[in-house]
Amino acid sequence: MKKKKSNHKKSGKRSFKDKKDQRPPREERVAQKVETLKIGQINRDFKKRAVSFYAIIDRIMQTGGPTIFFAIDGTGTLALKGFLKPGERAHPEINEGDAIFATVRVDEFNGELEGEIQTIQKLSEEPKQEILQEIENTIRERAKVSEVPFLIQSPILDKLKPSFIKAAHEIRLAILKNRPVIVRHHNDTDGYSSGYALERAILPLIEKQHGSSKAAWEFFQRAPCAAPFYEIDDSIRDTATSLRNVAKFSNKIPLVIIADNGSTPEDLLAIKHGKVHGMDFIVVDHHFFDTDVISKEVLAHINPFLVGENGSAFSAGMLCVELARLINNNVQNVNEIPALAGLADKIYLLNPEAVNAYLQIAVNQGYTKELLADISTVIDYVSAKVRFMEVREYIGVLFGEPRDRQKALVSLMAPHIRELDKKGLAIAKSTVKIKKIGKTTLQILDIDNTFPGFGFYPKPGRCTSLIHDDIQGAKDLDNVVSIGLMRTAITIRATDAANFSVHDLILFLNEKSPHAFVAGGGHKNAGSISFIPSKQEEIMDFFKDFVKSRQNS
Amino acid sequence: MKKKKSNHKKSGKRSFKDKKDQRPPREERVAQKVETLKIGQINRDFKKRAVSFYAIIDRIMQTGGPTIFFAIDGTGTLALKGFLKPGERAHPEINEGDAIFATVRVDEFNGELEGEIQTIQKLSEEPKQEILQEIENTIRERAKVSEVPFLIQSPILDKLKPSFIKAAHEIRLAILKNRPVIVRHHNDTDGYSSGYALERAILPLIEKQHGSSKAAWEFFQRAPCAAPFYEIDDSIRDTATSLRNVAKFSNKIPLVIIADNGSTPEDLLAIKHGKVHGMDFIVVDHHFFDTDVISKEVLAHINPFLVGENGSAFSAGMLCVELARLINNNVQNVNEIPALAGLADKIYLLNPEAVNAYLQIAVNQGYTKELLADISTVIDYVSAKVRFMEVREYIGVLFGEPRDRQKALVSLMAPHIRELDKKGLAIAKSTVKIKKIGKTTLQILDIDNTFPGFGFYPKPGRCTSLIHDDIQGAKDLDNVVSIGLMRTAITIRATDAANFSVHDLILFLNEKSPHAFVAGGGHKNAGSISFIPSKQEEIMDFFKDFVKSRQNS
Amino acid sequence: MKKKKSNHKKSGKRSFKDKKDQRPPREERVAQKVETLKIGQINRDFKKRAVSFYAIIDRIMQTGGPTIFFAIDGTGTLALKGFLKPGERAHPEINEGDAIFATVRVDEFNGELEGEIQTIQKLSEEPKQEILQEIENTIRERAKVSEVPFLIQSPILDKLKPSFIKAAHEIRLAILKNRPVIVRHHNDTDGYSSGYALERAILPLIEKQHGSSKAAWEFFQRAPCAAPFYEIDDSIRDTATSLRNVAKFSNKIPLVIIADNGSTPEDLLAIKHGKVHGMDFIVVDHHFFDTDVISKEVLAHINPFLVGENGSAFSAGMLCVELARLINNNVQNVNEIPALAGLADKIYLLNPEAVNAYLQIAVNQGYTKELLADISTVIDYVSAKVRFMEVREYIGVLFGEPRDRQKALVSLMAPHIRELDKKGLAIAKSTVKIKKIGKTTLQILDIDNTFPGFGFYPKPGRCTSLIHDDIQGAKDLDNVVSIGLMRTAITIRATDAANFSVHDLILFLNEKSPHAFVAGGGHKNAGSISFIPSKQEEIMDFFKDFVKSRQNS
Repeated sequence: MKKKKSNHKKSGKRSFKDKKDQRPPREERVAQKVETLKIGQINRDFKKRAVSFYAIIDRIMQTGGPTIFFAIDGTGTLALKGFLKPGERAHPEINEGDAIFATVRVDEFNGELEGEIQTIQKLSEEPKQEILQEIENTIRERAKVSEVPFLIQSPILDKLKPSFIKAAHEIRLAILKNRPVIVRHHNDTDGYSSGYALERAILPLIEKQHGSSKAAWEFFQRAPCAAPFYEIDDSIRDTATSLRNVAKFSNKIPLVIIADNGSTPEDLLAIKHGKVHGMDFIVVDHHFFDTDVISKEVLAHINPFLVGENGSAFSAGMLCVELARLINNNVQNVNEIPALAGLADKIYLLNPEAVNAYLQIAVNQGYTKELLADISTVIDYVSAKVRFMEVREYIGVLFGEPRDRQKALVSLMAPHIRELDKKGLAIAKSTVKIKKIGKTTLQILDIDNTFPGFGFYPKPGRCTSLIHDDIQGAKDLDNVVSIGLMRTAITIRATDAANFSVHDLILFLNEKSPHAFVAGGGHKNAGSISFIPSKQEEIMDFFKDFVKSRQNS
Repeated sequence: MKKKKSNHKKSGKRSFKDKKDQRPPREERVAQKVETLKIGQINRDFKKRAVSFYAIIDRIMQTGGPTIFFAIDGTGTLALKGFLKPGERAHPEINEGDAIFATVRVDEFNGELEGEIQTIQKLSEEPKQEILQEIENTIRERAKVSEVPFLIQSPILDKLKPSFIKAAHEIRLAILKNRPVIVRHHNDTDGYSSGYALERAILPLIEKQHGSSKAAWEFFQRAPCAAPFYEIDDSIRDTATSLRNVAKFSNKIPLVIIADNGSTPEDLLAIKHGKVHGMDFIVVDHHFFDTDVISKEVLAHINPFLVGENGSAFSAGMLCVELARLINNNVQNVNEIPALAGLADKIYLLNPEAVNAYLQIAVNQGYTKELLADISTVIDYVSAKVRFMEVREYIGVLFGEPRDRQKALVSLMAPHIRELDKKGLAIAKSTVKIKKIGKTTLQILDIDNTFPGFGFYPKPGRCTSLIHDDIQGAKDLDNVVSIGLMRTAITIRATDAANFSVHDLILFLNEKSPHAFVAGGGHKNAGSISFIPSKQEEIMDFFKDFVKSRQNS
Repeated sequence: MKKKKSNHKKSGKRSFKDKKDQRPPREERVAQKVETLKIGQINRDFKKRAVSFYAIIDRIMQTGGPTIFFAIDGTGTLALKGFLKPGERAHPEINEGDAIFATVRVDEFNGELEGEIQTIQKLSEEPKQEILQEIENTIRERAKVSEVPFLIQSPILDKLKPSFIKAAHEIRLAILKNRPVIVRHHNDTDGYSSGYALERAILPLIEKQHGSSKAAWEFFQRAPCAAPFYEIDDSIRDTATSLRNVAKFSNKIPLVIIADNGSTPEDLLAIKHGKVHGMDFIVVDHHFFDTDVISKEVLAHINPFLVGENGSAFSAGMLCVELARLINNNVQNVNEIPALAGLADKIYLLNPEAVNAYLQIAVNQGYTKELLADISTVIDYVSAKVRFMEVREYIGVLFGEPRDRQKALVSLMAPHIRELDKKGLAIAKSTVKIKKIGKTTLQILDIDNTFPGFGFYPKPGRCTSLIHDDIQGAKDLDNVVSIGLMRTAITIRATDAANFSVHDLILFLNEKSPHAFVAGGGHKNAGSISFIPSKQEEIMDFFKDFVKSRQNS
C-alpha cells in the first residue's frame, strides 16, 4: 500500500529525457496541439479541450459504467474516465500505483472537473520513480509542520517537541496522501479530550484535501476503546472495517492515532496486528510502562515517561491539544480542553503550574473551573451510555459546538448526575467495610453484592472514587486505600500517604499467587487488576499483606 | 432550528413595497421579461426559461460540485444550484433561514425540476418576517386537521378530543416543515400497536411531502424503548443520530412521539434532554403518574388520567389508532389494531364496552378474537428477539401487510410459542413456592435459579403471568399475588381481590427500607420494582407485610 | 415473488401470432423502422435509435425523478425509464412480473445503456406465459451445472453426487434470476471453511450477473450463526433484513444456504419461518439427526447421513469445496480448504484416506499441516472476537487472499493464541476435579468459578478440549470423559474408549430427569447439553450414572 521512496539518484535532466522518450512522437503532439501540464494547472478554462500530463494512478474505481482512475502528481488530483463496456474494467494494463502519461479531454460532471481518456500509457520503472519522487517532495513540502509556540511553558513539552513535530508531520502527510485517519482513545474525560482535540484539527484538513464535506465521514473516525488499552479486539474491528473500505471504496489503509492509551506492552499485539494489514500508528499517552516496546513499532510516540518525566504530570488531553495546534495552526475551539483534561485526571497534584496556566486560558475563553468539572462529569456519564459509538456531533456539543447548547446540556445533566452520584455513594456506604491496616484505612466495597449491575451509574470505578474521596473528608484521613471488589477484578484508589503502587501490587501478587493470573494497570494511585474467580479470597489476603508491607517502605 | 413566528404587525401593502424595493430595477426585469411566481406555479413549461420568486432558504447542501439551496415559500420546494468552484460554498452570504429574492433558469436534473441561480439576493428582516408569515400561514392551513368521527363512542375519547386535534395538527405541521418524525414506543403488543398505527398514518404523508419513496427511511423512524419509559439512553441515542443527520444530510431536528410510555416523571429528563438539542415531543400514554410533570414540556399530551379517567380503561394502541385517523384520514389497515391492543392490555376488565366495540370492527375486517390473541403472542415473542431494532417491514407483516403472509406467519409461530409457554410454565411450577398470607395466596418464583437466563423465552414477566393465570384456574382462587423474584428486581401480578397497588407498594417500601433505593412502576395490578441486591431479603419481608396490610384496607 | 412456470402447452406458432396481435399496427412500425430484437442484441450501436422487444418486468424502482423498469428476456437486462412527474409512478398499469412489448429510444447514462420508453404495452396472460417459458428455458440452460470431477475419490461423494448437482444448479439459477444469496454457517473452522468456499464460488458469478462490483455487497452475505444450528433468531434477522431490501431496493427475497448447520430438527422452525417470507433453502451439513425433517422443506440437502454414511467421516468444509467447484468451475483459492476443515473437525479419526488426499492437495498449494493447524487456531480466535459480524475481507485474508498477508497474520497470531491456550489450560488444571468411574476417568471443570467469564479466551468448549487432550498425553489414558460444567449447560468431550454418545446421553437424561428440560446436540464424542439451573446437581448425578452405564455396553 505504501509508496516506496526512490533511493535512486539521478539528474533531473536525464530522467526528463527518459520521460520524453515515452511520449508520443513530437509530430503527433504538435498536430494535436496538446499542452503538457501539471494537474494543479488544469482548471475550467480547459473544458472541452485536450491536455496531457504525467501522473501516478492513486486509486481505481470500477463503476457500473466507466472505470475511474484517480491521477495525482503532487499538485492535485484528477479523475480520469476510461470506458470499454458497462461495468468492464478499462485499460486493464494500468494498475494502482502505476505511473502514466495521459492525454484527456477535460469535462465537467456534476460540477467537478474530470478527464475523458484519449490515450493513456504506462511508464517504465525509472520515470515512475522520478514522478513518485516529485510527488513525495511536493507532498512532504506541503506536509511540513509550521511551528507555533506551545500554549504554556513546560519543560515536559520542550523535551517532547521533536516527537510532536514528527507526529504532526506524519498526520499531515497521511491526510495529503488521502489516507483515512482513525483516532482511538481512552474512554474517560482525558481520553475524549485527546480524541476531540485531534478531531478538531484533522477534520478541516481532510475536508479541504477532498473538497467535499462528505469526506469528513469517509476519511475520519474517532471512537473510544472499551478497555484501558488498544486491545486486539479494537485492532480486529478497525482492520476489518478498513479492509472493507479498501475493497468497496478503494480507500487506503488508515493511519491510526492512539490517544491516552497505547504506550504499554498490553497495546503491542494490537499495533503489530494493524501493521500486518498495512496500518501505521502514532501513540500519544501518559500512562506508565515498564519497558518501551512501542516506540520501535510506531511512526511517533509521545509520552512524558519517554523523556524522563512523570506521566501523571501531563495528561494526554493536554498533550493532544498541543499536537492539534501543530497539525493545524488554525484549529478552533480547543484551547479550553487542556484544563478540562488536566483537572479530570488530577494533574494538579503533581503539576499545578501547568494546570493553572491552562486553566487561565480556559477562564479567558469563558470556562470556570466549576463549569469544566461539570463538563467532565457529563462526559463521564455520556461515555458510559454511548460506549464504543462515535456519536461525533453529540460529543461536539459536549465540547462546546455550539457553546450555548453545551451550557444548556451541562446545566440540565450535571445536577442530575450529581444526584446519581449521591445515591451511588449512599448505596456504597450502606455495605462498605472499613479496616485499619497499620496506619492505612482500607475500604472494601463489595461491588457485585451492592449494585444492581450492568447499566448502573455510577460505574464501579466511580463508586470506588466516591467512597474514597468521601472518607477522607468525613473522617479527616489522609492514609486511605479504597477498593471495589468484583468476582474477577479489583478497582483501586489510594492516597499518597498510603505509599501505594498499582504496578508494584501486580508484581507482588504475581509472585505470591502465580496461579491467580493477575494482570492490570493504571497510574500509581489508581488502577485495576484482574484475576481468576477461584482465587478471589487468596488475592484479598495478599492485597492486605501488600498494603501492610508499604507502611515502612 | 425552529422558525420564529413574526409578532410584527404590518399592512400587506407596506411590506409588499419593502420587498419590491429590494428587487432589481424595473428596467432590468423588463429587459429580461422574467415573471415573479410562487414556487408551486413553476412547472415543466418553464424549462430553459428564467423565473423569479421570493422564498426562504430551508436547507443548504454542499456537494463535491455545486451548492444546493432548497427554497420554500409555502407552495412548494425548489432546489437551486449555485456554483463557485467544485466543492466550494457558493453565495456564502446566504444561510439557512434567510429570505431571498432569486432569479433562476429552470432546468431538469434526473427528472426533477431545479433552478440554476442567475441572481440571488438576501432580503432584510422585515420582508423576511413577512415571507415567513406567509409560509407559516400556508403550512398551518394545509396542516389543519380534518376531523373524522372516532371509531367508537367513548366519553374518554370525547374528553381527550382537543388534545387529539392538537397532536394531529402538530404532527402534520412537522411533516409539512420537512421535519423528520421519530416514534418511540413501549416494547409490548400495546406499544407496537401504538407505534405501528402512527407509522401507517405518517409514512404516506412523508412520502408525498418529499415526492420520493426513499424519504420513508430518511424522515421517519419507529423503534421500541428498552425500558418501560423513554430513558435518557433513548434520548441520547435519538439526539446523537439526529445531530449526525443534521450535519451529514442537513436534516432538521425531529419531532419525537412517545407512545405507550412518556407520561411519568421517569420520562422527564429524557424529554428535557431532547429539547436541549431542539427536539419537540408529543406523548400518547395510558400509564399512571403521581404528578403531571410532562404536559408543560411537550406540544401535546394525551392520557386518560389527564381528564380524570383511568388509563387501564383505554390502551395506548386504542388511542393511537384514533390519533392516526386524524393525522391521515386515509390511513389504511389499522382499524383492527385497537382490539388487538385492548385485548393484550386486558382493557376489557375495566372497559368491556370499548373493547367489544373495537372487537366488532376487527371481526368485520376478518380478525377473530383468537387470531388477535395469536398475533399478540407472536408480537411478544418477536419483540423479545428483535429488541431495539426497527425491522419495519417485518413488523408490517405481523400487522397484516400483506394479510396472507400475516396469517401464514401467525399459523406457524403461535403454536410454537404456546409450546414454549407450556414448557416455561412447567419449569416455573417445578420451583415456585406458594404461601398463604391471610386470604391472599402469594406465589414466589425464583427467576434467577429457575431459568437459564438471558435469551430464554418466555421472559421473567411472562413466566410470572403464566403461573399467575394458571393457579387461578387450577385451584379456583381469586385472591392471588404472583411475583418473579430476581437479584435486584421483582415483577408483580395481582388479582383485584388482592387489593394490590404497585404504586402504593413502592411508597411503602421506600418508607420501610429507604436504603434499598426502591424504584419502579406499572399499572395497579401489574408492574415491577428494582432495589439494590444486598437488600433483597429485607425487601421480601416488607413485601409480605405489604400484602398482609392490604387485607383489611 | 417466485415466477410460476407455465404448465400451459401450446405451439410456438400460435403464440407467436398472439404476440404479433398485440403489437402496434404494421404500418406504424414500418414508418418508425423499428427493429424487434432480443435484449442481449441491443448494444451501443443502437444509441439514439429506437428498438422494440418483448420482455418481463423484473423489478420497478421509483426514483425522485423517473420510474425505472428493469426488463429481462433471458438474454439480458435493460433499464427502461418512464417519466410522468418527478417522483410519480409512470405507467402505473405495468407491475412487477408483467409481460410487455416496448419500444424505447436507446441511450446511455453514466456509461450504462438504458431505454427511454416511447410506447409500452402490457401483454395478456398467454403471451406472458410464453415469454416466461422462454426466459425460464434460457436461464435453466445457462444455470446447468458443468460437471467437474471431485478433488478426491470417495464413495461418500459419489453417493451424494445427485444432491451436489441439484444444489449447484439451484444456486446458479438463483444468481441468474437476480436473487440475493445468504450463506449462514457454523461458527468454527469447519463452518468458516464451508461459508468461505461457497463465497469464493458465488461472488464472481454475482458480479458478472450484475456487471458491477457493488453487487458483491448488495446481493450476497455470509455470516456465522451464533448457535450450533440455524436458529429462529437468525431467521428473523435474515428475513427482516431481506424484507427491508425488498422495500427499499426492490430486491428479491434471497436463497439461503446453511452450511455446517441445518440438518437437525432444531433448524426446522427457522427454515419454515424463512419460507413463510418467500425464502428458499439449501442445506450442506454433516451433523447427526434422528429423523430427517429437513429434506422435504429445502431445495437441496447434502449430508453423509442421508446416504447411509457417517457425518464424522466428511466435514461440511470438505463438502462445500466440492460444491463450490460445481457452482463455479473457475473458483480460485479453495483447494487447500478441505484439508483445513477436515483437520479441524478431526475427520482423520474416521476417514484418514480422505483427509490425507486433501492434505496432499493442500501441500501442493504450499500449505503444511502445521500451517493449516495454525490457520485453524487463528480462525477460532478471530471468530470469538468478530462473533456474528461478516468482516468479509478480513476473513479473506485468513483464507489466503493475499497469501503473504495470511502468512504474516498467522505468524503473528498463532504463537499469541498458543500462549493464551497454555494459560487457559493452567487455569483449568488449577481447579479441575478428576474422578474415576469404573474404567473411565471423568474430568469436571467448573467453568463458572474458574474463568473470568464473557470475553475470556479460550472459551469454555476450547478449555474443555484442552484439559481433555492434556490428560490423555500426561497420564497415558485412553478412556476419558471431560466436561465443562456451567450453571445451565455442560460441554462434553469423550474418547472412543469411553463408549460415549451425546445423543444417548440426552435421551437418558430426559428419561431420568424430565423436569430438567435437557436439550442439546453435537457429534458422538463432542457436544453440549443445556438444562434448567435448579437441576444442575441432579443432572450431574445422572451424568455419572450414564458414564458408568456405558462401561459394559
